[in-house]
This record gives sequence, structure tokens and C-alpha cells, in this order.
Amino acid sequence: MTTVPVAPDTFHVFDTTLRDGAQQEGMGLTVLDKLRIAALLDDLGVGFIEGGWPGANPSDTEFFARAADGELELRHATLVAFGATRKVGATAAEDPQVQALLDARTEVICIVAKSHDEHVFRALHTTLEENLEMVRDTVSHLVSQGRRVFVDCEHFFDGYRANREYALEVVRTAADAGAEVVVLCDTNGGMLPTWMGDIVSAAAQIGVDLGIHCHNDTGCAVANTLAAVEAGVMHVQGTMNGHGERTGNANLITVVANLQLKYGWEVIPPESLREATRIAHAIAGVTNVPVTNRQPYVGQSAFAHKAGLHASAIKVDANLYQHIDPTLVGNDMRMLVSDMAGRANIQIKGSELGYDLADRTLAARITDVVKAREMEGYSYESADASFELLLRSELGMADRSFEVTSWRVFTSHETKPEGDSEATVKLRVNGEVEWLVGEGHGPLNALDVALRRALVRAYPQVEAFELTDYRVRILDQGHGTDAIVRTLIDTSDGSRTWTTVGVGTNVIEASWEALHDAYRWGLLSHRKAHN
Amino acid sequence: MTTVPVAPDTFHVFDTTLRDGAQQEGMGLTVLDKLRIAALLDDLGVGFIEGGWPGANPSDTEFFARAADGELELRHATLVAFGATRKVGATAAEDPQVQALLDARTEVICIVAKSHDEHVFRALHTTLEENLEMVRDTVSHLVSQGRRVFVDCEHFFDGYRANREYALEVVRTAADAGAEVVVLCDTNGGMLPTWMGDIVSAAAQIGVDLGIHCHNDTGCAVANTLAAVEAGVMHVQGTMNGHGERTGNANLITVVANLQLKYGWEVIPPESLREATRIAHAIAGVTNVPVTNRQPYVGQSAFAHKAGLHASAIKVDANLYQHIDPTLVGNDMRMLVSDMAGRANIQIKGSELGYDLADRTLAARITDVVKAREMEGYSYESADASFELLLRSELGMADRSFEVTSWRVFTSHETKPEGDSEATVKLRVNGEVEWLVGEGHGPLNALDVALRRALVRAYPQVEAFELTDYRVRILDQGHGTDAIVRTLIDTSDGSRTWTTVGVGTNVIEASWEALHDAYRWGLLSHRKAHN
Repeated sequence: MTTVPVAPDTFHVFDTTLRDGAQQEGMGLTVLDKLRIAALLDDLGVGFIEGGWPGANPSDTEFFARAADGELELRHATLVAFGATRKVGATAAEDPQVQALLDARTEVICIVAKSHDEHVFRALHTTLEENLEMVRDTVSHLVSQGRRVFVDCEHFFDGYRANREYALEVVRTAADAGAEVVVLCDTNGGMLPTWMGDIVSAAAQIGVDLGIHCHNDTGCAVANTLAAVEAGVMHVQGTMNGHGERTGNANLITVVANLQLKYGWEVIPPESLREATRIAHAIAGVTNVPVTNRQPYVGQSAFAHKAGLHASAIKVDANLYQHIDPTLVGNDMRMLVSDMAGRANIQIKGSELGYDLADRTLAARITDVVKAREMEGYSYESADASFELLLRSELGMADRSFEVTSWRVFTSHETKPEGDSEATVKLRVNGEVEWLVGEGHGPLNALDVALRRALVRAYPQVEAFELTDYRVRILDQGHGTDAIVRTLIDTSDGSRTWTTVGVGTNVIEASWEALHDAYRWGLLSHRKAHN
Repeated sequence: MTTVPVAPDTFHVFDTTLRDGAQQEGMGLTVLDKLRIAALLDDLGVGFIEGGWPGANPSDTEFFARAADGELELRHATLVAFGATRKVGATAAEDPQVQALLDARTEVICIVAKSHDEHVFRALHTTLEENLEMVRDTVSHLVSQGRRVFVDCEHFFDGYRANREYALEVVRTAADAGAEVVVLCDTNGGMLPTWMGDIVSAAAQIGVDLGIHCHNDTGCAVANTLAAVEAGVMHVQGTMNGHGERTGNANLITVVANLQLKYGWEVIPPESLREATRIAHAIAGVTNVPVTNRQPYVGQSAFAHKAGLHASAIKVDANLYQHIDPTLVGNDMRMLVSDMAGRANIQIKGSELGYDLADRTLAARITDVVKAREMEGYSYESADASFELLLRSELGMADRSFEVTSWRVFTSHETKPEGDSEATVKLRVNGEVEWLVGEGHGPLNALDVALRRALVRAYPQVEAFELTDYRVRILDQGHGTDAIVRTLIDTSDGSRTWTTVGVGTNVIEASWEALHDAYRWGLLSHRKAHN
């Protein structure tokens, strides 16, 4: 009644957040965003990270170049470049798009091939045989250049229903040409689990290792992926938090958690699965698309119970009221605040930063402070620098490099060359009052200029600090412009980047908090490095 | 390969948004909210509306009283009161909780019964036999009072795995006592579709009509529901937009759309299914929990394509790129105007908005303008309202409802109760100068207050406009606080939400642009609706 399939000898967890996930409406990832997300994916222990389409746009090309040049050090994952079969009527060897894939210097290349006859006619405007030749030529050329090649069969399931023989012929052609895995794609997302088994089994007759790529248009992307796994695929594609075009791709976190915790397969290291909640939220910090509260396994509400009737029974035996132990995915039963807030997590995080929090009372007190701050809207998940400042403050090591007395800022529609905003900042620095004015483009820029001028006499190193990213989010939707705002600021000193968080009833107040903490942490870091 | 099960003679679509859906973290529904949602559920054509637990809290009692007294006129649906089996050691006839169910004056009563032995012991603190007696007594008492009775077997699937015989005995007892439908509940949500078939089939041997109630903890609530339907249940429970505790309940809209459009069953009237998108969003307006963009079938992005490359193919045959015709659920194919914006995209987008761009020269000119603006940092992909204003401006139909003369805003660290920011806005409205001041929490709030005050005399409808979300992004990273900023603002008038974009060298300038365009588009939309 609860039988589970046996795990294949080799199993691929293939993430396409950076490629197909980035197709989501409103999502725009910079090269730095992609490098950061790739590092988080590696923390999660996925086997493959599809990074984008080199050659198709300059930023993807830059991503692969920077990754190959050492900006991305992957411990578990293999980076994959995505592209398409060669152009109609050319050869793969002379197709610049195919060459760009080789130039990306990845071990694995994944190419998309048409497998639906109507798409061959109406989108490629060519013959069925030429499409097969494009698959054959492209795969064998890439293999001859020493690459491992995966082939995504686009619109495979609709193609199978329209022209079964041809769809299977594309799979066979890719396999014969040397593809290591052929991935069956439900590109339009219209499949249901009950239909997966027969179609995947038919393709499995061909005798090539198969993969599955699902979209969530019927709300069944995860279940369709599992149905394909049960029918024999050994490679699953998906995205973090289910990002993707239309209704999104199969949520890879959910797929992995189901395989690992329901089937009992070890598809990623169990200790990495315990990072899943942290990683899901950290990725949201980069994409600026929040994890929905109801997301399976890692959502804020995923193990939240309305207290009341069952509270005492839950205390007696929590397992009667939850389908898994939430700590297995780094979540928490009473998740009213983020997963950072457990005492054990705080202790681990503290020791990562070099602070001994073994004392249980101390750790419990700091946990309470973090929980209270998170209730106010702070998020330390992606703001390590602010977390360290908070920790030091609780340990009686609060930063004293400067004290803010007051600030004000003025902005108008009249833009002068120096900017449209003027700020004043009054500080006490080493017992001296520094009261400086700054102007700039926008209030944050003006405040930054004023703060920098107020600090530079005592701390010339602030000249090197530069704000590199800035993200703002309204927390309580539906309350109009008068609402709680959270700001995350990334600051760099040229060699490292740190993130601070501010919360307030308005964007300036929240930004100011994140801004002065950015300077504080930069000064602290500089002091540590020179002691 | 795409076989579908045959529809049973009788099929129940049972909505529990008002009862189990309302358990969602942060959701609080008033009696009026519930009456409005019930009317919308009736529009959708569901068979049963579970309204709450009369007697358990005063507002549910009031809801049933007002519904019975004529405040709710249902055309299709039957109202259901929810409750529990009688107390341990009493009789159903003398249990006030059971009496409250009768007092609710509904034709159908749904009662929850324990079917997991451990829950009988540890939550009810009674014997297995007494629990069966509680089921028997409560069902037969309610039936004797002329009610149709459904029984929810709580924790049925976990119970089946722990003590198969007992779980089935609860189903049998409910059926023997006169329950019309016995509903198998995956209360903790841990099931996978592959496990559904065997367990549901075992229960079906008992020979009672069965229902299914799933939660989404494995991301498979919809698929589990379909698997149970394939194994023979004739009654599906779920909630609008998947609301519910933890990860939510099975999304009833998705379930119904799949049954209707994939299986070809007519479980609700087809003309009601065409209202699904409107109803999902209208319910969101009541609950104040937005429909996620990626929600299957009815989400804003569910049929949106980033189709730079494929736009011409989509124009030829849209069905090659979508799993169903979106108009069947009242949704629309949307072409996203992204930086790959081609002329075909712009033409399709224009005609969606009701503008004829068939003229190639005109379309090419507008495409160039859009491309140039996107180079500056604008993103029209998720800002349809700004795109329409731009289009009208290019077509010589620029908005003239007001002209901005100047604005300025001042923010400081000193927070007064009215806020920490003060703004002035000077406009020309219908030839009159309006020069108003506003204060608020933060510069955007202050500007919003001032702008609203400046417009309200000429356009009282602006009172209903409310900013509901606000997203900020720095575009050229690495340039510190002096960088290009893009702001997206969502504004609602209570019935619809629109998005505007602003770009500038600072957050205030960008926000101001998005803000005044939000007012412009709201006024335009209002004008169109009243012409």
C-alpha cells in the first residue's frame, strides 16, 4: 500500500533555475545574482546546474566566462550550458550558436531539440528528416569535442500524442548520436500523472537513460515528475521555488524532498537537505521573489499549526500532526519566524562567525531576540552582516565606531548635476561631533555621501566601500504606501561583499538602517583584519 | 496513452474554503466576507459549500443564521454545516455541539470522525469502540432529524497505515449508520499519488460512496485528488486558490479544471468555468490574499509567454504553445513585452489592449520606442498599465487628466505620529492649479497623500485607489547608491489591480513616476468604464 520504487544506480538532480526558471514573468537576474544562486544550489547538493544560454545574450556569456575563470567554485555540482540544435541547413561545426556552447567551457552541454512534428514544420520551417539530422549533427559534434551531452526533447508529450513514431525517433536519434541522457519535456505543461507512465515506458524501450522536465500548468508538475521517475527516468529537472514561465517548472525542492523522505532515496546529502529551507529563502533574497508561505516543505507556514484544540496533543506527539519531521528540511514546526530562529541554528551560525554560543541560556536569549526582530520584519537569512552586529550587541560587544545623532534628507523634482537630494548626517565619532551634508541622486545616495564624509576623517577605509545592490520589499501587502518596508543592501570593499538589512515604516528609514549597519560591519571587518 | 476514467453518475464538487481554507495562517474572514465568498462559489457552480462550524464560534453561528434568513440565495450550491462527532460518554441527542449543527438549518451536515487509532487514544482519550459508537450515534441522530450526512474520516490515510482494519471499520460504521458519503482525509498531507489507488480501492470495497480531502504538504494535493477519483471516489473536497492550513488544501479550481478540460467531465457548467479567473481574483479581493501569478489556469502569468523568438509562430497557431484555450477558464494569453520585444509582440499586445497596430510603420516605431525605454531600464513585461499609457502617448492619445508642475519631499529621523516625511505636490488639473501638502511614513507615502489630495476634488474616485505592492531594484550594479533604480507599483481600486513602472537615478524619482502613472491609468480605466 505504500510501496516505493527502487532507486536507479545513477540519479541526476538537475536544476534549471538560472535558465528556465529565469523565464518567469518579472524575473531579471544579473550575472552576480546568477553566481550567487549557483553557489546556493551547490550548497543544496544538486548534481547539475544549468546556467543559461551562452551566446543568446551577453549576460549569460559573461556568467559562464566568470564561472570558468574561478568566480564560481562548485563542490558538488557540474555546470551545464544550454543551447539549441544547429540552424537549418548549416553544419554544427560552423554554427556560431553551437560554438558559443563550446566556448562556455562546461563539462556538460544540454541542447533542446524539437520532437513535435508540427513544431518542426511551423516553428523551424523544415522537414522532419532535417530536424533529425540537426539533432544527430549537433550531438555528435559536441561529443567529438569532448563534452557530455544531454538532449531536451521539447514538446515531447504533445508530440507523442500527435505523431508517436516521430517523437520516439527523435529520442532514438539523440541516443544513437551519443547523448548521455534524453530528457522528455512537457513544455506546455498539460500532462496528468496518469498519462505519464505509458508514454515514459514507451520511450524507455529505446534503451537510453531518460530524464523528465515538467511545468505546472495542471498543478501536477511534482506528481508528473514522480510518475515519470516511477516509470524509469533517472534524471529530474526542476527549479528552486518552482520558478519558471507561466505556472512555473516542477519545484525541485519538493521533488527532492519527496524522493528523499518518502521514497527513502538519497538523491542529495541528508545534511544538505537540512539546508533546504535556508537555501530556498536565501535564493528568494537574491531574486527578490519571496518564498510563498504555503510552499511545501520550506514555506513559512508549511509546518505551522493554528494553536488551540490540538496544542496539547501536538506537544504529546508532534508526529501525529505532521507528515515528516520538519528539521529534516531545516524547517520548524512553529515556523512563525524564519528557520534562522531555532536555538541550534543560532548556535551553528554563531560558531560559523567565530562566536561561542555553547551556553544554552545565552543561545536561548539570543534566539528570542532574533525571533522578536523577525516578527518585526527583519530577515537575517541573507543578511549575515546584520546578524553579526546583532549578535555582538547581545554579547556586549556592540559596535562603537560611531553614534548617529540625527539625519535628514530632502528630495525634489529639480535635478542639479550633483543630484536632486540633499542630506545632513550628524554623528559622534571617537568623541568628536561630525556634522556633514551630502548631495546625490536620490535620498539614499545623499545619505551615503553625507555618512561617508562624516566618517572618512576617522576611518579613511570607508572610501573603498561601495553599495552594489539594493532590494526593497513591502511586508504587509494591502496597507498601501503606509506599510512596513524591508531593505537589503549589499556593500563591497572591492574584495568582499556583505549584506545588511533594515526595517521601518518607510523606505528611507529602512534604507538608512541597512546603510549605517553596512558601514559598521565594514569597519568591524577591517578592524578584525588588522588586529 | 491518454485514457480517461469514466465519470460516475453522481459527482460532488465540495468547497471548504470557508471552513478548512479559513484555517490558513493570517486569514481572518468576517461574516460578511463569508457571505460574499459563498455567493462567488455559487457563481462557480460548486455543488456544496461548507460554511463553517456553527456553535464552535459565534461568527460561524451568525453566518448560518444570516444565510438561512435569506441573506444568501444560492442557485446551484447546497450549504453544509461542519461539526464533530458527539462528546465521549454523552449521547448525540443531548450534545449541544450536535444540536448547534441542527440549529444551523442546512440540508447537509458534514461531521469529522477520528479514524486513526492513535488519535482516538491520545487526542480523544477514549477506546476504539467508544469512537465507533460516537460515529454511529451522531450520524444516526442527524439522519433521524432529516439531514443528509457526510462523514470526514480524519487522518484516514495515516490511520490506514497504522491500523488498517480500524480505519476501514470507521468507514463501515459511518456508512451503516446512514452517511451518504464517507470522505477519506489526508489530514497531514503526506500522501503521494502512487499510494492513493490501493488505499482508496480497499475502502471502496465497503460499498459506500467515497470522497477525498487532500492537503498539499507533498505538493501533490491536486494529483492525489485525481488519483482518488481514478480509484473511484465521487466527491472531491478542496478550497479556492488552495487556501488552508500549512501548505493549504487541494486547489478546487485546479481540480475542477483538470476534471472538466482533461477528463472531459462536466462537473460544473462550462459557462461557470469561464468565470473561474474572475471568481478566483474576486475571492482574493475579499480574503486580501492575492492569487499567485503562477496559479494554474487562473493566475496572471498562467498563459503569459516571453515570446520574442516564438511570437510569429504563436501568431500562426497559439495552440502549439498552450495546453488549453485560456478562454475556457476566463483567462487570456498574454504576450510579455520584454527586452526581446519584436514588432509581432507589440502588435499582439496592442490588440489585447484594444489598439489597432496593424500598420507596420506605426508598429515598428512603437517597437523602437519600447526598446529604447527598456534600454533605459523600464520593464513593461509586468507593467501593462505603463505600457498602455506609453502606447496611448505614441498614438497621440496621451493622458491629460493632470499635469505635474513640481514636487518635493523631506524626510528626517524624527518620527511624528503622522509620519516622518512631508511632501508637496503642485499639479494643473482641468486648468486649475492644485498645490497640496501631505505627510506620511516615508517619502512615497507622503507623496501619495499629497497627490491624492491634489486630485480628489476633480476625481473623487481616487479615494478608492490603494497601493498594494511596491518593488524596487537597482539596475546597474556596482555603481553604489548613485545608480539607476526601477520601481514597480501595484495599485488596486478594490476590484482590479494594475502595475506601473518608474525608472530614475533614485528611488524617489522612480517611485514618483510609477505613482503618478498609477493614478493616470486608474483614471483612464475609470473613464473607459463610464463612457
